[in-house]
Amino acid sequence: MGSVDTTLPHPFDPLSREEIENTIFAVKKVHGDVYFNVVSLQEPRKAEMTAWLEDPINAPRPKRLADVVVIAPGGKVYDGLVDPATGQILSWEWAEGQQPIITMEELQLVEHIVRKDPKVIEQCKISGIPEEDMHKVYCDPWTIGYDERFGSSVRLQQALMYYRPELDNCQYQYPLDFCPIYDADKQEIIAIDIPKIRRPLSKAPAFDYHPAAIEARGGFRNNLKPINITQPEGVSFKLNGREIEWQNWKFHIGFNYREGIVLNNITFNDQGEVRPIFYRLSLAEMVVPYGNPEHPHQRKHALDQGEYGAGYMTNSLSLGCDCKGSIHYLDAEFPTRVGGVRKIKNAICIHEEDAGILFKHTDFRDDSVIVTRGRKLIIQQIFTAANYEYVVAWTFHQDGTIQPEIKLTGILNTYAMDPEEDTHGWGTQVYTGVNAHNHQHLFCLRIDANVDGPNNTVYVTDATAGEAPVGSKENFYGNAFYNKRTKLATTGEAKTDYIAQTSRTWEICNPNKLNPYSKKPVSYKLVSREVPPLMPKEGSLVWKRAAFARHTVHVTKYRDDQLWPAGRHVPQTSGEPSRGLPEWIGDGTESIDNTNVVLWHTFGVTHFPSPEDFPVMPAEPMTLLLRPRNFFARNPVLDVPPSYASTPSQLLAKGQGVYNAADKLSKLAFETPEGVD
Amino acid sequence: MGSVDTTLPHPFDPLSREEIENTIFAVKKVHGDVYFNVVSLQEPRKAEMTAWLEDPINAPRPKRLADVVVIAPGGKVYDGLVDPATGQILSWEWAEGQQPIITMEELQLVEHIVRKDPKVIEQCKISGIPEEDMHKVYCDPWTIGYDERFGSSVRLQQALMYYRPELDNCQYQYPLDFCPIYDADKQEIIAIDIPKIRRPLSKAPAFDYHPAAIEARGGFRNNLKPINITQPEGVSFKLNGREIEWQNWKFHIGFNYREGIVLNNITFNDQGEVRPIFYRLSLAEMVVPYGNPEHPHQRKHALDQGEYGAGYMTNSLSLGCDCKGSIHYLDAEFPTRVGGVRKIKNAICIHEEDAGILFKHTDFRDDSVIVTRGRKLIIQQIFTAANYEYVVAWTFHQDGTIQPEIKLTGILNTYAMDPEEDTHGWGTQVYTGVNAHNHQHLFCLRIDANVDGPNNTVYVTDATAGEAPVGSKENFYGNAFYNKRTKLATTGEAKTDYIAQTSRTWEICNPNKLNPYSKKPVSYKLVSREVPPLMPKEGSLVWKRAAFARHTVHVTKYRDDQLWPAGRHVPQTSGEPSRGLPEWIGDGTESIDNTNVVLWHTFGVTHFPSPEDFPVMPAEPMTLLLRPRNFFARNPVLDVPPSYASTPSQLLAKGQGVYNAADKLSKLAFETPEGVD
Ligand SMILES: [Co+2]
Ligand SMILES: [Co+2]
Repeated sequence: MGSVDTTLPHPFDPLSREEIENTIFAVKKVHGDVYFNVVSLQEPRKAEMTAWLEDPINAPRPKRLADVVVIAPGGKVYDGLVDPATGQILSWEWAEGQQPIITMEELQLVEHIVRKDPKVIEQCKISGIPEEDMHKVYCDPWTIGYDERFGSSVRLQQALMYYRPELDNCQYQYPLDFCPIYDADKQEIIAIDIPKIRRPLSKAPAFDYHPAAIEARGGFRNNLKPINITQPEGVSFKLNGREIEWQNWKFHIGFNYREGIVLNNITFNDQGEVRPIFYRLSLAEMVVPYGNPEHPHQRKHALDQGEYGAGYMTNSLSLGCDCKGSIHYLDAEFPTRVGGVRKIKNAICIHEEDAGILFKHTDFRDDSVIVTRGRKLIIQQIFTAANYEYVVAWTFHQDGTIQPEIKLTGILNTYAMDPEEDTHGWGTQVYTGVNAHNHQHLFCLRIDANVDGPNNTVYVTDATAGEAPVGSKENFYGNAFYNKRTKLATTGEAKTDYIAQTSRTWEICNPNKLNPYSKKPVSYKLVSREVPPLMPKEGSLVWKRAAFARHTVHVTKYRDDQLWPAGRHVPQTSGEPSRGLPEWIGDGTESIDNTNVVLWHTFGVTHFPSPEDFPVMPAEPMTLLLRPRNFFARNPVLDVPPSYASTPSQLLAKGQGVYNAADKLSKLAFETPEGVD
Repeated sequence: MGSVDTTLPHPFDPLSREEIENTIFAVKKVHGDVYFNVVSLQEPRKAEMTAWLEDPINAPRPKRLADVVVIAPGGKVYDGLVDPATGQILSWEWAEGQQPIITMEELQLVEHIVRKDPKVIEQCKISGIPEEDMHKVYCDPWTIGYDERFGSSVRLQQALMYYRPELDNCQYQYPLDFCPIYDADKQEIIAIDIPKIRRPLSKAPAFDYHPAAIEARGGFRNNLKPINITQPEGVSFKLNGREIEWQNWKFHIGFNYREGIVLNNITFNDQGEVRPIFYRLSLAEMVVPYGNPEHPHQRKHALDQGEYGAGYMTNSLSLGCDCKGSIHYLDAEFPTRVGGVRKIKNAICIHEEDAGILFKHTDFRDDSVIVTRGRKLIIQQIFTAANYEYVVAWTFHQDGTIQPEIKLTGILNTYAMDPEEDTHGWGTQVYTGVNAHNHQHLFCLRIDANVDGPNNTVYVTDATAGEAPVGSKENFYGNAFYNKRTKLATTGEAKTDYIAQTSRTWEICNPNKLNPYSKKPVSYKLVSREVPPLMPKEGSLVWKRAAFARHTVHVTKYRDDQLWPAGRHVPQTSGEPSRGLPEWIGDGTESIDNTNVVLWHTFGVTHFPSPEDFPVMPAEPMTLLLRPRNFFARNPVLDVPPSYASTPSQLLAKGQGVYNAADKLSKLAFETPEGVD
């Protein structure tokens, strides 16, 4: 009898440093000095992986493969597939006319070049900045998105321009009104977009958020007493490599340059039966379209994950700041441009939190009661997309609910304005001379379903009033209502939008397995209410490039490598034709009934800035739920020990036998403090 | 110069025990032995109260008054107003044909009478329960709601029937199929509703949630390590009587039999300026309509607050169970039926929680960073409405956001079913023989606005694409969008519904005060996404009785005593005409522009039960936000001390001066546990 070699990486593990290095070495050997854009795990083919997960001892172990993107001299882009163990290059293809993700290193370069460019210097002078102050000029380089004047074959960035009177000033309060365009291959500024109406540099006093600025304005508040959160006996989760087990959940925590956290093979141990739920969950793409129609603001519609990478932009988290309590961290490793490896320490944090009351019931007759507290497990990363930060938390509840949560913080993207100027409603003056444009943050959650097995069907469910009128025999009092279920049989039918009037939800069902009591198919339900439609119009540039955002839900049949709904290489796509989802859906006739389905869900917020968001934004949360419905035969958390439980018979016996595990450290707020009495 | 007498109760304080006793004494003296239904603070007239709040030293102190409801022999109901200090009865009126709130004591009585009633005993026999087992028969008495056969003049309850084979069994798994009707004045069963198709008592084995049942099924999970939450230096809030101060917030915490927690005179200290926001916030009413049209299930549509009272039904909370950490409690006192006073100890809990990241920004150039953690303050109660529990939390954030949150837990209302029976989609079999009917939980949040003063105007705001088409000069790339604001000028116009397509919000503005930067009126915005429409149809019984639930938002002009949108006395209202809001709104022509407005907001969930909810439901949360928009001139939390902050110049100086207040108690998850190394 064989056994699983536990010294090998799990097939879902990100490439190790050694694997990245081996891959780079192999590529360099054949292709010389190229710029490394991506060296990342190509996830195992699903068929192979599923076979191995089912029988890791006997099934062949999926091979480790490196998905490689390089930029060769002259700006030629190549997609490659490399075996890191052998160095064998399995494929190597020119990605003609395509631009891969922009790396942080590429972004960093632009500012230096902008500062020395004579045309930029001239524009700065017009804005009121003398040449000797060019070191005070900053830019946030963004991929150009798409600009029809320049096409896709030259790798371009647009430099959103700012000024810092002092080194520590927040630059976003001093935006400049022009926008240089940078050629990444030539490393030079090839054009500048200059608005017809000029807006001079703001002369408003700096309004900063750093401690010295706060001190100068009166100092920090001093009335916050510490809240200590500790786990003296350790945490309740276990890790085996990157596989975590907690409260019946088990899954693998991956991470890549693009999506950041990837959760694979999510299962729930239902009283001894390990039941699969999702094969893979990730934030697969996002788009942040800005609503000012003035040229060139239409170019501000970052597809942050496809264009910059939620992994590449992720923060190194620090204990007691980003995360509090008992924390486990995982690091991330990525290639550098010239072929080194950089490590982001603490890229992912993992911790538990108290989640308040899990369930409670009191019998009003005798006050017999049960009260049980809940827990949650949080897998979190934070990434910085130039001005904004995104806190992405994958929250697992004991009851089988998965709750992706995103908090938005950081700084508004800002543009120069004359304080007397009319913003025409496309933005808000958030500080003197600072126009923050309307925008949306739309995320695409990719749900590779595996609800009790790979063959699933998606239904929309709509709360619907009984058809019979008030006064009729069937509905005399008019109170009848039911949950109307509509099968999404094809990819075309599955393009669906949220309907508030019916509290619409989507059920990912396994039609092959019925709940023993309800006789309904076992399912996980998508409950998501923060689902603004894409505001850019049908046929608009954003609508074409970020096609995933056209609907609240799309469903496709699973295919390997259909991971990213705006396409593999996103920068400078024109949207003609649209990449990703529309390609995969085609004419919409493909059946998605009782097969391996992937559900793509767009959610987010429409953000009309206000001065409260300035100069740095208090975190704004958004969330959704994936809830088991008809999945379990009963409440799956009944065996969580209660804090307190009494039964009628115990109360009749004067409290004998009452279960009391109340938290002993809890105290009355105005008791004598610890150590003082 | 005068001073404020701090020994007197605050005018918003609930009646003290002494005041309740004095009132009862005064009433008994004149009216003899009556049943006390309500003895509760009549809140001060607003004009008087506002004058006093503005100048407590010189303005007359609003008088303490007791709002009294009694039931005299023969079932005659009287509304009275009593001065508890003098015992003077200021008014006394017969509430002809009206039924006041049902008290817990009234509910308790019914079960005893049901068990002895020969007609009930006979029905139990038909269900399979022998007469000697009548002590195992239980009922949840509900007000009859409205039944046109019986009208409103006789005080009635309907007894939802259950059985417990053993004393500690959860009765909701053994529902009986008939429904006795109880006359509260005669204290007898006057009728029984018997379904045409009988459903015998379930013979399924008991499936309980109490510890003995869990032990019998394998015991509790033992893999949860403690999470300790402590505040060794005490809490960050202060209480002066029932007035709380925390993080610039100040407000009074009231409590009454009806709404439970009432928050009054909510202000925010904005850098020294105390700015009013809301005069009064409460959950003013709710309705839980069930969707099975079969008679008599239409009667299941509890208006729990008006019919039973979120105060009367509130739980006595316990430290380390319902609440964890450093908790302050407030008690509640209510009259008993015969004129005593009962105390609910710990009716309200108050505590702080860590709220994760408040704001963060990293400069990608040099990793200079600020990260600041947030706090929240929670004012919470839990009430038990027969089978269900409602956890109501009023959460205050440091950034000026108020977040009412409700968690639903407890037990589904259940009805008997033949396991082979077709539920027709009106319910779900959640366990053998147990049909849980579809229902909604709709809450009415009453917002008495005071945004920088009493004169406010409400706007709806709708995210709207620019009108110009793609390709036009004004919107060439099609990305234009703005926030369309529509004034709700009259009470008729203000009947508005949520629109998901426009991410609709409501702004309560003060049109007399503009934000210095955005030049928009200061406002608080209602952001609420869990807003199902009332499922019972227009013209239905529920639609008539719970008229507040017809729209997501209603707005009225403030008037004293217009507190409860389904009317003052809710049980047995026919809805013809509808009480409360429709009466106040009338023809809808009244102006609500730039005046003292009250916004009534309906939110909640539509609940299609599933076996996961059985036998007790994991808590299901719902929430909404009241957010300052254009209210503050800037982010109001910049002075919250960060966990960590570094500036570019500090990093250039090799970290000198960096602000580091990271939580020192945070630990790596797999470090050696405390006290072991
Ligand atoms: Co934003
Ligand atoms: Co419910």
